[in-house]
Amino acid sequence: MINIAQFGAGFIGQVHAKNLSEHPSVNFARVYDADPARAQAAAEKFGTTAAATIEEILGDTSIDAVLIASSTNTHADLLKAAARAGKAVFLEKPIDLSYEVAQDAAAVAKEAGVPVMIDLNRRFDASNEAIREAVLSGEIGDVELIELSSRGPSLPPIEYLKVSGGQMRDQNVHFFDLMCWITGLEPVSVSAMGSALVDPQVAGVGDVDTSVAILKLSNGALCQIDAQRRIGYGYDERIEVNGSKSMVEAGRQRTGWVNRYSKDQISTNGMHAGWFERIEPTYRAALDAFVDALEKGEAPSPSLEDGLRAQRIAEAATEALTTGKAVQL
Amino acid sequence: MINIAQFGAGFIGQVHAKNLSEHPSVNFARVYDADPARAQAAAEKFGTTAAATIEEILGDTSIDAVLIASSTNTHADLLKAAARAGKAVFLEKPIDLSYEVAQDAAAVAKEAGVPVMIDLNRRFDASNEAIREAVLSGEIGDVELIELSSRGPSLPPIEYLKVSGGQMRDQNVHFFDLMCWITGLEPVSVSAMGSALVDPQVAGVGDVDTSVAILKLSNGALCQIDAQRRIGYGYDERIEVNGSKSMVEAGRQRTGWVNRYSKDQISTNGMHAGWFERIEPTYRAALDAFVDALEKGEAPSPSLEDGLRAQRIAEAATEALTTGKAVQL
Amino acid sequence: MINIAQFGAGFIGQVHAKNLSEHPSVNFARVYDADPARAQAAAEKFGTTAAATIEEILGDTSIDAVLIASSTNTHADLLKAAARAGKAVFLEKPIDLSYEVAQDAAAVAKEAGVPVMIDLNRRFDASNEAIREAVLSGEIGDVELIELSSRGPSLPPIEYLKVSGGQMRDQNVHFFDLMCWITGLEPVSVSAMGSALVDPQVAGVGDVDTSVAILKLSNGALCQIDAQRRIGYGYDERIEVNGSKSMVEAGRQRTGWVNRYSKDQISTNGMHAGWFERIEPTYRAALDAFVDALEKGEAPSPSLEDGLRAQRIAEAATEALTTGKAVQL
Amino acid sequence: MINIAQFGAGFIGQVHAKNLSEHPSVNFARVYDADPARAQAAAEKFGTTAAATIEEILGDTSIDAVLIASSTNTHADLLKAAARAGKAVFLEKPIDLSYEVAQDAAAVAKEAGVPVMIDLNRRFDASNEAIREAVLSGEIGDVELIELSSRGPSLPPIEYLKVSGGQMRDQNVHFFDLMCWITGLEPVSVSAMGSALVDPQVAGVGDVDTSVAILKLSNGALCQIDAQRRIGYGYDERIEVNGSKSMVEAGRQRTGWVNRYSKDQISTNGMHAGWFERIEPTYRAALDAFVDALEKGEAPSPSLEDGLRAQRIAEAATEALTTGKAVQL
Repeated sequence: MINIAQFGAGFIGQVHAKNLSEHPSVNFARVYDADPARAQAAAEKFGTTAAATIEEILGDTSIDAVLIASSTNTHADLLKAAARAGKAVFLEKPIDLSYEVAQDAAAVAKEAGVPVMIDLNRRFDASNEAIREAVLSGEIGDVELIELSSRGPSLPPIEYLKVSGGQMRDQNVHFFDLMCWITGLEPVSVSAMGSALVDPQVAGVGDVDTSVAILKLSNGALCQIDAQRRIGYGYDERIEVNGSKSMVEAGRQRTGWVNRYSKDQISTNGMHAGWFERIEPTYRAALDAFVDALEKGEAPSPSLEDGLRAQRIAEAATEALTTGKAVQL
Repeated sequence: MINIAQFGAGFIGQVHAKNLSEHPSVNFARVYDADPARAQAAAEKFGTTAAATIEEILGDTSIDAVLIASSTNTHADLLKAAARAGKAVFLEKPIDLSYEVAQDAAAVAKEAGVPVMIDLNRRFDASNEAIREAVLSGEIGDVELIELSSRGPSLPPIEYLKVSGGQMRDQNVHFFDLMCWITGLEPVSVSAMGSALVDPQVAGVGDVDTSVAILKLSNGALCQIDAQRRIGYGYDERIEVNGSKSMVEAGRQRTGWVNRYSKDQISTNGMHAGWFERIEPTYRAALDAFVDALEKGEAPSPSLEDGLRAQRIAEAATEALTTGKAVQL
Repeated sequence: MINIAQFGAGFIGQVHAKNLSEHPSVNFARVYDADPARAQAAAEKFGTTAAATIEEILGDTSIDAVLIASSTNTHADLLKAAARAGKAVFLEKPIDLSYEVAQDAAAVAKEAGVPVMIDLNRRFDASNEAIREAVLSGEIGDVELIELSSRGPSLPPIEYLKVSGGQMRDQNVHFFDLMCWITGLEPVSVSAMGSALVDPQVAGVGDVDTSVAILKLSNGALCQIDAQRRIGYGYDERIEVNGSKSMVEAGRQRTGWVNRYSKDQISTNGMHAGWFERIEPTYRAALDAFVDALEKGEAPSPSLEDGLRAQRIAEAATEALTTGKAVQL
Repeated sequence: MINIAQFGAGFIGQVHAKNLSEHPSVNFARVYDADPARAQAAAEKFGTTAAATIEEILGDTSIDAVLIASSTNTHADLLKAAARAGKAVFLEKPIDLSYEVAQDAAAVAKEAGVPVMIDLNRRFDASNEAIREAVLSGEIGDVELIELSSRGPSLPPIEYLKVSGGQMRDQNVHFFDLMCWITGLEPVSVSAMGSALVDPQVAGVGDVDTSVAILKLSNGALCQIDAQRRIGYGYDERIEVNGSKSMVEAGRQRTGWVNRYSKDQISTNGMHAGWFERIEPTYRAALDAFVDALEKGEAPSPSLEDGLRAQRIAEAATEALTTGKAVQL
């Protein structure tokens, strides 16, 4: 049994809190939120107690680990404080919107020597795991092209976009990580193009809502990532990895199995309504991996380094988007 | 909060026990099994207490309802006793292998006036619900042909087949129910043909392992049901309803979304390993429906009459299988 | 170069005439039709000359073979006359609506010793050939269940149905043949059920428009054939063969590759408009097989015996449909 | 009846010659090839006569039109000569590998005022036509992202690559045209990245075999085109057009409809063996369009301008590939 406390009880916080409350190897020790009422509500809903202060958690030696699901601008400080308090850390991505701040926090955590896992949860999607295994086993031969699509059903609020760091840092960062994790390869350069098509305010805050990034990987293979904040047909995430021998795909997922045959048309259930419906199971699987690593005394993965790498690629892609030139990594 | 006790802690009993233990509106009050050690183990695993006797449950006035998941030969007696004790009943199908005994038990329960639900759980499959809605809404026009496939991955033990009542009563009964429930129509006659292809011992116990039944429904529409105890590609359950306007299908379900493209072949994940993997979610959904009916004071569905009807069709189909003649219903 | 003349210049006659005119190994020698104007028009359209009489063709020793595509009631007489004149014969099915007449004509042709091929053209469908090969190669293990669907877009005229011999003889006969040809097995008994759902006049002429037939094959395997004269979603022909190891399917064919993704729905092109659009390529492939057999001096296939067998099964199925009893073959 | 002569009797020349010989509105008047024996063989095979010289065709006033399918380096001169001789021209792409030479030849043809059609034959693919119609009709809303894949089964000979102009000019040019034709939009800038992964000799001749190009269109929409000379699973061409309302796709095409269900896997027929098997029908459809335009006295399409535009984009993409910078169009 591992005693875990959580910081943050917002939307994603509640997803994590539910998983903590149901996990057979976890004692959900405490929950903290900057808003005490929200902490209290979550505590009641998920069978734990609310902490009044951060210190109440970090100072409690019975607590083995903390799950940081608070707002992004608190991640780096909480990571550093938790690491210094000797807690294992499960950290929602990103470490910090500033790559420099993120590097600094990661250095502190590394020095403290505590186990840290970054919640790059798409690694725990069953399809993604299957294609990675196919790629790393050599089944498809040498990787030559990888394509990733990330397409959401609606534009986030402009207020959110203002502080999000931009599409490369906010949306693509997951896919930069998948690209490396699935292929086992590092990128050497990146180009990108983007537009604000959904709402002119997106351009007003210096961002894009539709983009394509191309990367060259260390073996010369190419990667293309298309990202759209708003599409009309739900949520669409798809990956192809094309090798010298064959191709493997984490294909589109329909939400059901009902087929309709009518004159001139065959139709079936459509895509998921949003990203959460599509990847919800990965939150639980990520927690399983964290708990499992702690129980076995192994380093949890994805690591802080994985998180930093994805952020570093996002930095370069952001520059490429702005300058129209390929950026070396 | 509804207090529910359970009879039976075998394989399906444990599925129900887990659902009772997790249901937000249920207090899992007690579990009984003919084997006290098995009852005790289940009680510990699912956070309830073991009952030493049946009476300990039926005599406890705080218990609102019972879930009967014990061996088939105990169903009728437990149904009668529970009904007489005024308990609502959630009953694993069938009521009894003998249609006469089943009728008698149903009559007792009806007289007692308690709510009874038969666990014809395939009604709670999302695809089946969707095609029923399409059919009953008139979307496909008049029903003209319905096809159901029920194909399992392996032959049950011969010892089980000996006491199962035969393929029509044991396997097809679910599909006789679906046929009526999806179309809203009653059958008027049935023909059937069968063979023992998997193991000669199946014929030795007077049963078949591969069969096709044809039914004529009250509006003249036809229904065909193929049933195979053992196929080579996992578990396959599929339904087509063909109307005068269009066709709707509860299609084959793949277990994943990984596609492989190689020379001359495209492949994807296969079917479920077995019936349980395929229909597991329906057990929880059926319990939800039972609890919901009790909370609202409505009659739960599928009803005892639904269970009797399916068994009555199975009787006729068994006769048709033996005689080679169409049997009127 | 083989000199071939043709009897009949109606709808199917024109399909054959076009194929004769384009075949690189065929000299399309003459065309005859009971309506001289129709013969003349076909002759001009397909680059041949019209024959004024049947004898003009049968008496011409330069003509090697005849293709009989005239109305069904002339098949048996033309077969006999052509066989006696020493011509190879390519015969549209059926030999005759009367099984006795068909047997008699077949006996005459057999005695004459000429090559005769029955145009059971679905044998030349690429999917059907592929599943047959899979079955006969042992890939799927022992055949245990075969399912065939034959569903057309519209009811033929009642005048046609009056003289068609009924759904088993007119529509199912192709599928009785496929069942035997694909599995290499013979049927031992047949049951059937049918309804007139599309138009009450169908019942008025003693026929059905919707039916299901079940057959038991010589190894105990079962076969089910559903046949619908009119469905709402185009033309649907589908075959599954389920063996002890795996299953192989000649699946539904969409008419195109355009996919549309919209909110809650994914759709694609529908089915073919009718049977002709679906099986048109098989007419040319059947002619190829006939010409190839003549060139090699081999017996063409499907043979007269194949045609007789399919008709014999249709007779039994018609009886089963009427009596509600399994009929032995 | 239109009299058409053809230049070139190589592989693609024979495809065109067959279509000319079978077209109901075409009289295939003459065929010329630099190799007289090849011209003679084609003349015999396709029922026309060989021309000894180019002048024999251009000087023959009975010839209405010429189809130029000779080697690329002869296109521009033949186009100019044919235009000056007043012949309508059906021209295999490209006009010339040099964009300047192509512009010059196009100017001459334009001045001559003869109808000229460029064989950008993928425009005549049924799926491509359907998605264009969906896009231009407004069905999908505003175009926001278009993705095209062009993936072939094998590397062309290095000798061919040396004179091909590079992947952008040789392979992508079709897709630059489709991008504009399907969306009705013009590109404003292009970035590209490429690698020589299949054979180091590809790099040796200054080319790539695997590339990704990104374009921005006039409305801000993005386009990505991946091109691979050699993949392991046959020939794969696929297009998605994603609009503000919905998405439409010219999907992957399987070569058949046979499905196999085995333990843990469902498989079906794979992709076409090569590009020719996939797009063969478009050659005939393109010829139909040319003949139809001549008969109606309309300007044939795709026009010379369409061909020039595609080549202009290829020039810019080639520069982008080399420099790593976005190139304005």
